[in-house]
Amino acid sequence: MRLGDLVAELGGELLGSPDQTIRQIASLDAADSGCISFLANPKYKAQLQTTRAACVIVAPAVKDEAAARGAAIVTPDPYLYFARLTQWWARRVRPAATAVVHPGAVVDASAVLGAGVSVGPLAVIEAGAVVGEGAVIGPHCVVGRNARIGAGTRLSARVTIGFDCVLGARCIVHSGAVIGADGFGFAPHQGRWEKIEQLGAVHIGDDVEIGANTCIDRGALSDTVIEQGVKLDNLIQIAHNVRIGEHSAMAANVGVAGSTVIGKHCTVGGAANIIGHLELADRVHISVATTVTRSLNQAGHYTGVFPLDTHADWEKNAATVKNLAKLRERLRALEKACNKNE
Amino acid sequence: MRLGDLVAELGGELLGSPDQTIRQIASLDAADSGCISFLANPKYKAQLQTTRAACVIVAPAVKDEAAARGAAIVTPDPYLYFARLTQWWARRVRPAATAVVHPGAVVDASAVLGAGVSVGPLAVIEAGAVVGEGAVIGPHCVVGRNARIGAGTRLSARVTIGFDCVLGARCIVHSGAVIGADGFGFAPHQGRWEKIEQLGAVHIGDDVEIGANTCIDRGALSDTVIEQGVKLDNLIQIAHNVRIGEHSAMAANVGVAGSTVIGKHCTVGGAANIIGHLELADRVHISVATTVTRSLNQAGHYTGVFPLDTHADWEKNAATVKNLAKLRERLRALEKACNKNE
Amino acid sequence: MRLGDLVAELGGELLGSPDQTIRQIASLDAADSGCISFLANPKYKAQLQTTRAACVIVAPAVKDEAAARGAAIVTPDPYLYFARLTQWWARRVRPAATAVVHPGAVVDASAVLGAGVSVGPLAVIEAGAVVGEGAVIGPHCVVGRNARIGAGTRLSARVTIGFDCVLGARCIVHSGAVIGADGFGFAPHQGRWEKIEQLGAVHIGDDVEIGANTCIDRGALSDTVIEQGVKLDNLIQIAHNVRIGEHSAMAANVGVAGSTVIGKHCTVGGAANIIGHLELADRVHISVATTVTRSLNQAGHYTGVFPLDTHADWEKNAATVKNLAKLRERLRALEKACNKNE
Repeated sequence: MRLGDLVAELGGELLGSPDQTIRQIASLDAADSGCISFLANPKYKAQLQTTRAACVIVAPAVKDEAAARGAAIVTPDPYLYFARLTQWWARRVRPAATAVVHPGAVVDASAVLGAGVSVGPLAVIEAGAVVGEGAVIGPHCVVGRNARIGAGTRLSARVTIGFDCVLGARCIVHSGAVIGADGFGFAPHQGRWEKIEQLGAVHIGDDVEIGANTCIDRGALSDTVIEQGVKLDNLIQIAHNVRIGEHSAMAANVGVAGSTVIGKHCTVGGAANIIGHLELADRVHISVATTVTRSLNQAGHYTGVFPLDTHADWEKNAATVKNLAKLRERLRALEKACNKNE
Repeated sequence: MRLGDLVAELGGELLGSPDQTIRQIASLDAADSGCISFLANPKYKAQLQTTRAACVIVAPAVKDEAAARGAAIVTPDPYLYFARLTQWWARRVRPAATAVVHPGAVVDASAVLGAGVSVGPLAVIEAGAVVGEGAVIGPHCVVGRNARIGAGTRLSARVTIGFDCVLGARCIVHSGAVIGADGFGFAPHQGRWEKIEQLGAVHIGDDVEIGANTCIDRGALSDTVIEQGVKLDNLIQIAHNVRIGEHSAMAANVGVAGSTVIGKHCTVGGAANIIGHLELADRVHISVATTVTRSLNQAGHYTGVFPLDTHADWEKNAATVKNLAKLRERLRALEKACNKNE
Repeated sequence: MRLGDLVAELGGELLGSPDQTIRQIASLDAADSGCISFLANPKYKAQLQTTRAACVIVAPAVKDEAAARGAAIVTPDPYLYFARLTQWWARRVRPAATAVVHPGAVVDASAVLGAGVSVGPLAVIEAGAVVGEGAVIGPHCVVGRNARIGAGTRLSARVTIGFDCVLGARCIVHSGAVIGADGFGFAPHQGRWEKIEQLGAVHIGDDVEIGANTCIDRGALSDTVIEQGVKLDNLIQIAHNVRIGEHSAMAANVGVAGSTVIGKHCTVGGAANIIGHLELADRVHISVATTVTRSLNQAGHYTGVFPLDTHADWEKNAATVKNLAKLRERLRALEKACNKNE
């Protein structure tokens, strides 16, 4: 692809020939002379001297260094530019979904499909479901009774959308995701568990992305809510009646227990867990593998992870952890004794 | 729905008019004048004064307060009553599965379907499988060779039941669950892993509920066993030859490693992990995100979680954790020195 | 099955009659007189005296004890022998997949199926996909556009292989696994997340096994790579551009974040997490539920887990953990004061 076409589409100041062609996007260290690359993090600036990339996307601050070595595109935010470049690239190299309903799909007569909808082979769309204009329903998806899928939303192969659940526009849902399974609710009774039927649904806003095999349970009485712009990675568990605020993002394997409310613009590291009935303020950031056991009313960065060590050293320290309260008592006693002595 | 009908079905003492109608179940704080609500936890008693619910389900102890504000249903266990109300509600508002085999399902000629079985579109039922009376097999389910599904059991869309596996009666299995994949067993040999074929199956009792994308592996030689009444949330891993005792319950993301035996009436918090070859007594309760590394022979509540803190404070404390054994030595030395001084 | 046939196939020295028949493989303690069992771990040697097994697979060191009690097969590595026995057994008791394409499968005309390929009911094989000789594609699998499946590879029911992804020969992939969903990549922009299209794929070597509901994401620019002989258990998350070295193995619920490179012959315990952009040397072993937050350049065994305790004791110790840095300061002050006194 020509650099000239790229800049015509995505903007930026091109230093070098618009006729130069590139055939791949690559990182600075992996790039060869057919590649375009980018410098987003100033700490990799030295790689500008060593990369073989034909063209590098850079910030104005390194414009001169970049120009000295070859073609460059100068833009205020190279990482954002790179993101848009990947989108442009994907549109060019990937075939668009054909706007047809595969004859092997099972679409109920009462389902309503908008203009330009694509339904893959062996997908099932149940009674009363509504699929918005231009949406793509992958092979083997199940869109439950009365569910609604927003315009331009794409379900990869094998996604389950439960009955009555609602997805906004331009969402992306990856394979194996389950939206709208029952929340986990039981009343204990004489040593058994009496099921609490989950009468709510799941409501997902616009521009939400949901990873492979992630589960978002339906609410017990009211809905589980994922606000617009939220990004969830793979294998995440969102329990009933959770609410996740706009533009928050969670890495893989996270668990959020029932009725917890998470603010806007939060991030949650992989495998972190947030117990139920908490509130997290906007712009709270949780580290990987951390367990959140209380509400967090202030923006900030929170962590709780046992530090890694060699197994032998861990064994010694972990044994002491189990006696920590006693250790503190001993220290206190010693402080007292010493003070008396003085 | 009429309060009179509700009490006729579910019991309890109705204070107020049987002709009052309700159109929704809601929590005390979310209820409006068309709602029925419940007070299960005495600590929310103050909400009785502020709720707009048309009717409140209460325990005898608060009968007078409840009656003073409007209609009420008095019952010894309001939470249990609420659970049964949700069940009654779901039966009324949700269409029952039609007892037909969808023409798009692939049912082997040698499979045996009981009376009133419903098989959804594109489900696959393999040779020799037996499906009990009134069971519901959702769209896209796969019931493997010689598997047996008990009467009244419901598989949501896209459940996999492996060959030879057995499910009891009245089970509920949610989308994406995989029952009977191979257990993870290999013999190391010259730096490679030699597969141990998993020759057992999975045996699940009556009234078990299994969450979305949860995996229960088949046993290596004998079966993996889930006893009756067990409730498993989403994204749980149950390894080969585990046994989970009656009426135990596990929250999402839990992992139980191979051959571990868990007692009856246990609860395991979300994302907790239990290593292999352990035994947990009846009525053991494990906290969220805790790692169980030894057998627990006594009922009780067990925990092991690094406490949450701001990242800055965590960093300081975590650094000290890594020197804890040395810290203890220093304290011991100081104690010795001080004792000598005295 | 006759012991003589078994030894003819798998080798080893048979002590006892080749005509003795067995009908099951069982552990020493579960075996009855129709069973064959094995003694791999010397610590269970006492069970040789009590087992009712008809035949026991043993190492030369216990040949005499074994012979004294009945039939035995003597072999240098009984556990390896047991593994191969399970394979032999499975081949005999499980029907081989029939090399046919089920008429209910949807196979694109441009897909290429090798000789002896089996495609289950309702599987979808998209345009340009290539399936190697003797491969088994289970019911409800989706093999994406231009994906390649190696010879002899077996996909269980309901596996998703994304477009352009490559699997080697003799792989086994269990139900619900998702190979080639998008990696989790976004550029922050004005409080929103701009998607970075994932332009790489997934490349999996020969003899890899992938557990149920495990996810391996496609790379951002280059491929995510799983080298030959790797074994992954269920519900594992492998993020974009991870590389896992030959013959490494990971237990269930593990998460590996983006661009991390793991060496050969490593093992990772269940629910462990490895953050992104790290390097782990060959033969690194990570304990269950440990979080790896730095590169590990030396082979060895690493751990970081909060030790389990009763909840009451944990509460006391955890409170002290949160004041550990201060505790250290107090100790230091006391040491100073005491030294001065002396």
